Amino acid sequence: MRATVIHGPNDIRIEEVPDPVIQHPTDVVVRVLNACICGSDLWAYRGVAQRVAGQRIGHEFLGTVEEVGAEVRGFAKGDLVVAPFVWSDGTCEFCREGLHTSCPHGGFWGQVGSDGGQGEAVRVPFADGTLVKLPKEAAGDAKLLPGLLALSDVMATGHHAAVSAGVREGATVAVVGDGAVGLCGVLAARRLGAGRIIALGRHPARTELARRFGATDVVAERGEAAVEAVKELTGGQGAHAVLEAVGTEESMRTAISIARDGGAVGYVGVPHGGSAGVDIGQMFGRNVSLNGGVAPARAYIPELLPDVLSGAIEPGLVFDRTVDLDGVPDGYRAMDDRSALKVRIAF
Amino acid sequence: MRATVIHGPNDIRIEEVPDPVIQHPTDVVVRVLNACICGSDLWAYRGVAQRVAGQRIGHEFLGTVEEVGAEVRGFAKGDLVVAPFVWSDGTCEFCREGLHTSCPHGGFWGQVGSDGGQGEAVRVPFADGTLVKLPKEAAGDAKLLPGLLALSDVMATGHHAAVSAGVREGATVAVVGDGAVGLCGVLAARRLGAGRIIALGRHPARTELARRFGATDVVAERGEAAVEAVKELTGGQGAHAVLEAVGTEESMRTAISIARDGGAVGYVGVPHGGSAGVDIGQMFGRNVSLNGGVAPARAYIPELLPDVLSGAIEPGLVFDRTVDLDGVPDGYRAMDDRSALKVRIAF
Repeated sequence: MRATVIHGPNDIRIEEVPDPVIQHPTDVVVRVLNACICGSDLWAYRGVAQRVAGQRIGHEFLGTVEEVGAEVRGFAKGDLVVAPFVWSDGTCEFCREGLHTSCPHGGFWGQVGSDGGQGEAVRVPFADGTLVKLPKEAAGDAKLLPGLLALSDVMATGHHAAVSAGVREGATVAVVGDGAVGLCGVLAARRLGAGRIIALGRHPARTELARRFGATDVVAERGEAAVEAVKELTGGQGAHAVLEAVGTEESMRTAISIARDGGAVGYVGVPHGGSAGVDIGQMFGRNVSLNGGVAPARAYIPELLPDVLSGAIEPGLVFDRTVDLDGVPDGYRAMDDRSALKVRIAF
Repeated sequence: MRATVIHGPNDIRIEEVPDPVIQHPTDVVVRVLNACICGSDLWAYRGVAQRVAGQRIGHEFLGTVEEVGAEVRGFAKGDLVVAPFVWSDGTCEFCREGLHTSCPHGGFWGQVGSDGGQGEAVRVPFADGTLVKLPKEAAGDAKLLPGLLALSDVMATGHHAAVSAGVREGATVAVVGDGAVGLCGVLAARRLGAGRIIALGRHPARTELARRFGATDVVAERGEAAVEAVKELTGGQGAHAVLEAVGTEESMRTAISIARDGGAVGYVGVPHGGSAGVDIGQMFGRNVSLNGGVAPARAYIPELLPDVLSGAIEPGLVFDRTVDLDGVPDGYRAMDDRSALKVRIAF
């Protein structure tokens, strides 16, 4: 089969790789229908996150079950399924608590020795603990498929940011980051009943989508000016809940600065660069909390799925470009230069 | 009257200062019966925290109401009262939410222009919003008075650490810091139903008190060795709730390291030195939360008071030395060289 492989910074290739086969009785093999490129893939693409030359890449996909291991109970050949961005056994203490990302048997698609999501097929370990079944008819629904694909990461991650930041009915929320995760964070905050949602961003197509997703205010300023603008919008207080969806020093500093005293920052931006701006002295006197981390997407998909199926939320709108497998290197370039928000790969 | 004044590093003096008088109709004047020296006072004593030469010091006291402003409703001359370590108006949005430390009219005893707690009398602004009434007969109860005094800061702060760390019935808790706040954190964790309490400390008198307060395990190691020891005690997982009661880079790093995935660090140690060890990369993959800050003692005293009065908790045991006002400079020296855990000042 063919799959996306990373050879080094800016070197994404489509190559012939071995067909996946059942290796353990708890595996299934999924034929990929849709995958996508993640903002976090760009850290590898830019050489900031290290990868072994020739390593697979991609951690978001949905597809059809093609082969089923002997011990798999919940899936049959032909099932349409979505995969969260990590696999997990579904039975350990952490999985039972809903923190599937801490499963001791878990792993990340594309890590050395595993298949990446940006390929024609994927061997899925612990299929019963990992995959979520989708209605089969969705496979042919071009309007629905992108939203279901978004459950694999960005929508679940935006929701994790919102939950971690403690978004409640009527809360004032601010979202730092106008990438796909930040935009899904806006959507998640609206879904959780936020009264006011301030989106920080300056890219017109993205802020327009933020408004469509429920943002009531847009702040185009950055750094200190952004902090001032949010303070002004909130009577000097800041936001009850701040969603941090970037992961840089500056974004974290902004996020903490615009949190209301006693409020919380829900951080989901993959951190790069040590302390990532976390000055505890800035938080102490104001009792600002910092919650979040890598999103246990598997725990959230069952809750979010009905709202995607009903059309109550349309996270698939974050995809503004679709490529085929051969178009993936171009897709990386487009996301790297921000000419695309998020690229979907249709097989 | 006479009060404690700080003139510079290691320069604590007892001086004649103006008698406090009612300045606003919401003030009362309290004649101090008991005060104490706080671990955080040592930051000023050591010159790490800046003070103006001649500034008052001390933020923990209880005493008897001596004069009452015309608009004060809740207190009368002769009432026994305890003061939380900040004053607050009791009526603003933050006070109503229980975050009295963020009251825009609030302040810290001993800040420039206010009386410090380590003096014979204190003018209390916003008395109705600040003070908590105690049973008058407690004034003569030498066994009870230290515990009531501890409500002004250390017991409330230990409780804030425990609440912020999410201590629940049956939880495994670890406490970083064997000072008075850490020990009160142990007590608070036990009070909240912790199943197991691991106290990190190596000073025998303190770890003995930790055990008396409810610690089930004591870890004497520091740094990496302490992390290993806690991991070993918890089946490799770490503690659900970690109370950070020191405020240094090393203690924060240890606290985050010994938190279980999905767990929380309740931080109350006054931070010194920028990021204070908060490496967000260390928290991200494990979904460790960081909650806490300066404790809204005023919010907690009503909840904790009945348990002190009944003897269910005895936070007053943290006082291992009592001095009179003239003995205060010696008290600072004793706390600075750790020959005293916490010094009470009896007037």
